[in-house]
Amino acid sequence: MKTPWILFFCSLLPGLGDTLNCSSPTPEALFDSLEKELFSKKLLRPVKSFSETLKVTLEAKLAGILGVNEKSQSLTTIIWLSQKWNIQGLSWDEKECGTSKVSISREKLWIPDISISEFMEEDKSPKTFYVHLNNHGQVTDDKPVRVDSFCKLDIYTFPFDIQNCTMTFGPYLHTGNAELTLQESREVLWTKGEWELKNIQVTASILEIPHGNYSEIKYYFILRRRPILYVVNLLLPSCFLITLDLFSFLLPPATTDRSAFKMTLILGYTVFLLIMNDLLPVTGHGTPLLNVFFSISLALMVASLLETIFITNIQFRSDNYVPVPHWLSVLVLRYLAAIVCLPRKRRSTRLTVSLSPEPKGMTCVFLVCLLMLAL
Amino acid sequence: MKTPWILFFCSLLPGLGDTLNCSSPTPEALFDSLEKELFSKKLLRPVKSFSETLKVTLEAKLAGILGVNEKSQSLTTIIWLSQKWNIQGLSWDEKECGTSKVSISREKLWIPDISISEFMEEDKSPKTFYVHLNNHGQVTDDKPVRVDSFCKLDIYTFPFDIQNCTMTFGPYLHTGNAELTLQESREVLWTKGEWELKNIQVTASILEIPHGNYSEIKYYFILRRRPILYVVNLLLPSCFLITLDLFSFLLPPATTDRSAFKMTLILGYTVFLLIMNDLLPVTGHGTPLLNVFFSISLALMVASLLETIFITNIQFRSDNYVPVPHWLSVLVLRYLAAIVCLPRKRRSTRLTVSLSPEPKGMTCVFLVCLLMLAL
Amino acid sequence: MKTPWILFFCSLLPGLGDTLNCSSPTPEALFDSLEKELFSKKLLRPVKSFSETLKVTLEAKLAGILGVNEKSQSLTTIIWLSQKWNIQGLSWDEKECGTSKVSISREKLWIPDISISEFMEEDKSPKTFYVHLNNHGQVTDDKPVRVDSFCKLDIYTFPFDIQNCTMTFGPYLHTGNAELTLQESREVLWTKGEWELKNIQVTASILEIPHGNYSEIKYYFILRRRPILYVVNLLLPSCFLITLDLFSFLLPPATTDRSAFKMTLILGYTVFLLIMNDLLPVTGHGTPLLNVFFSISLALMVASLLETIFITNIQFRSDNYVPVPHWLSVLVLRYLAAIVCLPRKRRSTRLTVSLSPEPKGMTCVFLVCLLMLAL
Amino acid sequence: MKTPWILFFCSLLPGLGDTLNCSSPTPEALFDSLEKELFSKKLLRPVKSFSETLKVTLEAKLAGILGVNEKSQSLTTIIWLSQKWNIQGLSWDEKECGTSKVSISREKLWIPDISISEFMEEDKSPKTFYVHLNNHGQVTDDKPVRVDSFCKLDIYTFPFDIQNCTMTFGPYLHTGNAELTLQESREVLWTKGEWELKNIQVTASILEIPHGNYSEIKYYFILRRRPILYVVNLLLPSCFLITLDLFSFLLPPATTDRSAFKMTLILGYTVFLLIMNDLLPVTGHGTPLLNVFFSISLALMVASLLETIFITNIQFRSDNYVPVPHWLSVLVLRYLAAIVCLPRKRRSTRLTVSLSPEPKGMTCVFLVCLLMLAL
Amino acid sequence: MKTPWILFFCSLLPGLGDTLNCSSPTPEALFDSLEKELFSKKLLRPVKSFSETLKVTLEAKLAGILGVNEKSQSLTTIIWLSQKWNIQGLSWDEKECGTSKVSISREKLWIPDISISEFMEEDKSPKTFYVHLNNHGQVTDDKPVRVDSFCKLDIYTFPFDIQNCTMTFGPYLHTGNAELTLQESREVLWTKGEWELKNIQVTASILEIPHGNYSEIKYYFILRRRPILYVVNLLLPSCFLITLDLFSFLLPPATTDRSAFKMTLILGYTVFLLIMNDLLPVTGHGTPLLNVFFSISLALMVASLLETIFITNIQFRSDNYVPVPHWLSVLVLRYLAAIVCLPRKRRSTRLTVSLSPEPKGMTCVFLVCLLMLAL
Repeated sequence: MKTPWILFFCSLLPGLGDTLNCSSPTPEALFDSLEKELFSKKLLRPVKSFSETLKVTLEAKLAGILGVNEKSQSLTTIIWLSQKWNIQGLSWDEKECGTSKVSISREKLWIPDISISEFMEEDKSPKTFYVHLNNHGQVTDDKPVRVDSFCKLDIYTFPFDIQNCTMTFGPYLHTGNAELTLQESREVLWTKGEWELKNIQVTASILEIPHGNYSEIKYYFILRRRPILYVVNLLLPSCFLITLDLFSFLLPPATTDRSAFKMTLILGYTVFLLIMNDLLPVTGHGTPLLNVFFSISLALMVASLLETIFITNIQFRSDNYVPVPHWLSVLVLRYLAAIVCLPRKRRSTRLTVSLSPEPKGMTCVFLVCLLMLAL
Repeated sequence: MKTPWILFFCSLLPGLGDTLNCSSPTPEALFDSLEKELFSKKLLRPVKSFSETLKVTLEAKLAGILGVNEKSQSLTTIIWLSQKWNIQGLSWDEKECGTSKVSISREKLWIPDISISEFMEEDKSPKTFYVHLNNHGQVTDDKPVRVDSFCKLDIYTFPFDIQNCTMTFGPYLHTGNAELTLQESREVLWTKGEWELKNIQVTASILEIPHGNYSEIKYYFILRRRPILYVVNLLLPSCFLITLDLFSFLLPPATTDRSAFKMTLILGYTVFLLIMNDLLPVTGHGTPLLNVFFSISLALMVASLLETIFITNIQFRSDNYVPVPHWLSVLVLRYLAAIVCLPRKRRSTRLTVSLSPEPKGMTCVFLVCLLMLAL
Repeated sequence: MKTPWILFFCSLLPGLGDTLNCSSPTPEALFDSLEKELFSKKLLRPVKSFSETLKVTLEAKLAGILGVNEKSQSLTTIIWLSQKWNIQGLSWDEKECGTSKVSISREKLWIPDISISEFMEEDKSPKTFYVHLNNHGQVTDDKPVRVDSFCKLDIYTFPFDIQNCTMTFGPYLHTGNAELTLQESREVLWTKGEWELKNIQVTASILEIPHGNYSEIKYYFILRRRPILYVVNLLLPSCFLITLDLFSFLLPPATTDRSAFKMTLILGYTVFLLIMNDLLPVTGHGTPLLNVFFSISLALMVASLLETIFITNIQFRSDNYVPVPHWLSVLVLRYLAAIVCLPRKRRSTRLTVSLSPEPKGMTCVFLVCLLMLAL
Repeated sequence: MKTPWILFFCSLLPGLGDTLNCSSPTPEALFDSLEKELFSKKLLRPVKSFSETLKVTLEAKLAGILGVNEKSQSLTTIIWLSQKWNIQGLSWDEKECGTSKVSISREKLWIPDISISEFMEEDKSPKTFYVHLNNHGQVTDDKPVRVDSFCKLDIYTFPFDIQNCTMTFGPYLHTGNAELTLQESREVLWTKGEWELKNIQVTASILEIPHGNYSEIKYYFILRRRPILYVVNLLLPSCFLITLDLFSFLLPPATTDRSAFKMTLILGYTVFLLIMNDLLPVTGHGTPLLNVFFSISLALMVASLLETIFITNIQFRSDNYVPVPHWLSVLVLRYLAAIVCLPRKRRSTRLTVSLSPEPKGMTCVFLVCLLMLAL
Repeated sequence: MKTPWILFFCSLLPGLGDTLNCSSPTPEALFDSLEKELFSKKLLRPVKSFSETLKVTLEAKLAGILGVNEKSQSLTTIIWLSQKWNIQGLSWDEKECGTSKVSISREKLWIPDISISEFMEEDKSPKTFYVHLNNHGQVTDDKPVRVDSFCKLDIYTFPFDIQNCTMTFGPYLHTGNAELTLQESREVLWTKGEWELKNIQVTASILEIPHGNYSEIKYYFILRRRPILYVVNLLLPSCFLITLDLFSFLLPPATTDRSAFKMTLILGYTVFLLIMNDLLPVTGHGTPLLNVFFSISLALMVASLLETIFITNIQFRSDNYVPVPHWLSVLVLRYLAAIVCLPRKRRSTRLTVSLSPEPKGMTCVFLVCLLMLAL
């Protein structure tokens, strides 16, 4: 059973209400009566007296997620919004007037001023022109709304992030059942894009402020980014290059130019950073963990290249070269080597360093990659 | 013979209808009569009684496909929409009033509220101002509509994908012939762009819901992407580079720096990925097979470079080097070699591995490329 | 002498017409008369009787070409549109009313429903508010129109392409002189951008359909792309790199790493393809010849690199290497060599192949480049 | 205690004002009275006489910073604007009319012409339709305003820049408390994006010009860019590459091709400049210090590569080579070496130059990097 | 003393004019009179008789330059437009009516149809609603106008280009002082962006055409691009790379792979072209000199690499190589060498060519760079 949200609208608009008399069961007769009783009071809130509140039933279904803009911290969605309210005192006899329901142009009626507080742009919704009015005075206003709303986006765990965006419908009083609304939203979601709807939660609150009670409904849309594309395009190739860098220590420095090899590798990683730059969200506040991971990877590559340069220098230096200062070789061979996951044990014989990335080293890199994937 | 869609409009608006009397066969006389009988009843659905439904004939021709946006899962098209309906009871004598047809400003008449359910933005159609009314009371409303609609895009087989986008016109009843509408759509399609119209299918359905029957027409536009540009720009050069990588095993490791060559090749492939990144659709749900293919290609290249590094290490190592751990050389030479399509037979003499990519290896790469092209 | 287009408007709107009487030669008196006789009949087509057609004179001048969008196959232009028509029966005495011409707000008059069939978006023209009415009843409506229209763009010969875009003005009857309109268009063209106006052609046609004759005027704008920028930025550098590749055969394989050189060259060409990717139009139907040329160039470079690899393999192989399979060396040295324009004569002594790109080879490359430029 | 801005509106509009009499405490009666007394005087400024000024209380809260466009020197924000003013002489008895407050459609009332002088585009704010009117004649108009305003952006210290954007509300007189407005603005700021609100300052000024006093309120929004993303993505990798370049002097020139290594490094830095190009603001006036830093870094790299070329030339030249001209070797080895932070002392023995970047050299580079970070 | 533009409006609209009588010095009385005398004649040009022209004083201040679009040849600016004109015969006594000035909603008055001929899009100006009317009948209409106008942009000397954009205000007669308008424009210019306002010139012209005199005012805005950013980002790094290429001749061919070095350099330059491609204006007509400079630089680099290849071939060829054809070596060593600024004198001993780029060569490159900077 579907019990939608029932909201109490306690705005400051005056009320109205009368029973219609149709001279004949024809469309003309009904509209003449409506013209007199209803359309002429377009400015008035449809209640009998100001002490009464207008109950507005609100239903929102998430029809599609058009996009998330991390730069301006906004979310663009299509919401199917259904509002229902009663025009107090309005009713007519179905047989006397010939019908139980009519479509009426929206501009002929008083419309409650629902608005979403997080709205940030002019309305770009597709226009609809008619609302339904039945013979008990109930108005049904169904329409799609394109919502450009604020959303505090936290991209720290990008691309494995989950966003929680709120939409505050006000000013309304409400009662009702949140679970049902959620189910419907899942059913109607059109898009199969980057974002997946995980959950919808609804809370209601009534703020008692001097000029009447202010009621609002908050919808929380919890969205999960589908990370597969970013894993395939960003994380995997990046791990490939890091693996390459690690194993490049196996290259014999005597026959190949290992430093040139590593430099080309860093160049390739820089080109790769160029690709990522297009895909990564650019926002100044929270730096994504992924960015930090890429920076650290680059730092490691540079450190391992420096290591290579030192080793080459030590290995092939002629006697007439000025030796590397002692403090520098200690810094590089003891601390930097540990960072780039080189085995520390065999550092006694310098040349071996450049040879054998032991399981420990590889574990180190794979750990970092797995860590990212497991996040 | 062209028999367009005939639709029954059973909305809730009241009806109207009278025979016109013109005082003279002049434009002024006719419009005076229309003003009295028709324009004053703009709010009323043009039927005699609420029990009658209004039949609206609907015809949609696809005039152009402006674009497909994979990110927001949307399709932008121009549709030529033709609606025809009868104003019940309205008719005039051609001789008495001087003409059989008049153009009337749209805002003077009741217009059925056709809408496309998949619409997702405000209407950006070029505006038209007139409809035609003939002396039997038939209204013809021809207009172009620019449609920004949802479409669930499946890009798994990109760029060889076929999309099926629906447009649901409602709320209408319909009868008619789908085949003709399709033919016309093919005739009028203006664009010669990326998308080709394969087929148009039409289905009709009547939903019986409490407040009257709800009728809708669904158009299915089946679009096929023209893949030639993506093949020329993406697949072919990518296969060129993969071929290069395979044949690079022929480079003699003694005289050339094969690992540096392969590293430059990987760099080139990374640059190439940069180009593809601009052309590929970015959406988080279905990863295109092409992306997977590119990732696997990069993985193969990295694997073959690792292979080269190991071989170089084994081939040129001095005796004072620590040997590669046994489990690693087994992993690399037995399993990795198989992946990069190296012949396994001659692995007994290590040096030969680096020499001869047998037909089997080449077949392997060509198979992958052909597979992609044959998809 | 300028004789503009005279068009016959045979729409379905009723006519009107009377001679004005001004009580005094003041603006107020004239407008009072106009109010009574003209403004009140805004809905009526200004003819005496429905049997008469309204002649509308149409003049279109191309003021500027704002852009061509190959992706959505559209053309954006600014057209200066001038329409003239007579309000039948309307006239006033210049002395009696005090003036021979007045400016009238457009919304007070009946305006013919000119529309361009190729229009594909809402009207973004700068708004104008007044039309001119003279004392013989002639209305002159001059206004700029920003036109977003369809245009079947054929980019096969890009950047040397010539486009033929049509704009169909309807529904109108016309007579007149096409040559003059063309001359004026050339005079007023504001822009000095990428597109050059070569010619304007005008044709007229009258379709006899049941509900009156349907007349339309078709303007054909023939536009030529100015290719110089694309030649300087795309074709020349591309030819430079291809030339480099050809002459790289002169590099002595003994002292330099020719395969690495060629690999870097291919990398450079790939980077170059990245630049072109931004400049080239992306559309799926007709692949530009230029794209094919770039793909073939890349293929040639890859082929010549493969050639180099084979030669290096043959030249420097030790005796313990497994020889290249016979069928492969035949394929490469006989057929591939021919493709990359290597002289076939001296293939008897293998080493010479890598040495001397004879005039024939260079001619081959220069021929391709010249061919592109001569297109 | 919150004391908002009180503003005196001394515009040229005439005043009005009367006490309402309601026939009954129903909505209809109140609106009939309002219709007569208020709505009919929509064009008049609500004061009794022209000598009186209208006090308008103005409150602006910064709800969100949507974006800063350095190219067009503009700032896009969402402001919550609250205006309050009194309709002179209007009041009603709460009991007689049944309510103390009503919502009234904005188009039925005179609205003060607040405008922000820095506005540069059409209004894209979400539309609101109602204002509140209480029984003492006070009108409250709360609405969100999307502001596209000019802002002189100084990007010299990018990405550590602080911008000061003003919004001038006029024409108004004001008194009040700036501190409170600032606090509220901080509370409601929605976004967590690139820009952080540091401070809001308010000043008021009254310009006495012939046609009445012109009063305006200036809000100064001081925004600080969050630099962390730019440091991680731009400064750190750039410093990595510069460090690499410095230490590349340790590469022994006899065994490795140091000039090729440095050339690849410069290529990598160029690719890196490509990434930065997307992130850096492009504006022609103030060149960011960062751009200068990157240009100097590139110059240093090129200088050090030139140094390497000279050294290689000197070291390995055969006797039959023409020596480098004396003035050039002096220029390079004395001055250029100093620029690239090479120790000058040991320049007596030429070969040592290429060996030992002493602490002094490294300090030099680190100083530059630290300087940038400390800015 | 500020004497603004006085313009004569000789349009075709009829005139009006009367002295107002206020029943009391209240706003209501004044507006009742205005309603009767002025608002009811909104359609009429406010002159007594058609023979009189309406003088409109026009003042335009350039408030901001939002952007220049080279592709569509357009300029976007914000202009503060002030129009003043007199309503003939309208006046009231300040004491009798209570005020000397009122604000009036713009839609209640006749507004002259100023338009800028170069306008190319719909109006996106921020909306203003009021004009001022004083008791002598003078109307003052101040408003900001966002102008998207055509401008023939000549980018031959980019980034040192100066643009001259015209705005033609018509149809108006004018007199006045151009110097003052210029001064004010400089004062109010908000932006500090890429474009600097150098000068504003004003000319007036009266075209005598059959239907009355047509008067127009032409504003010429002379804008200068601030080139510093392009020099720092484009010209300097480009010159660095060219310098590198020149000095690479110092690399000893025996120990280093000079052709590989140069190839990497060309690759780096290609990457650099990629950066420039984003910054350079893309338009097909006038190729910027800078593009030509970059193409020539690339050509020179390719030529010098070809030179290197030939030299390497000659230097290291074994005896069994087929020699380079004579005509080719003449072409390369005599003419190409001269182009790449190599000293011609020592060409007798071939090996020296590769060694010593004499001052003459360096002067050659520096000359080109300085030439670009001095432009």
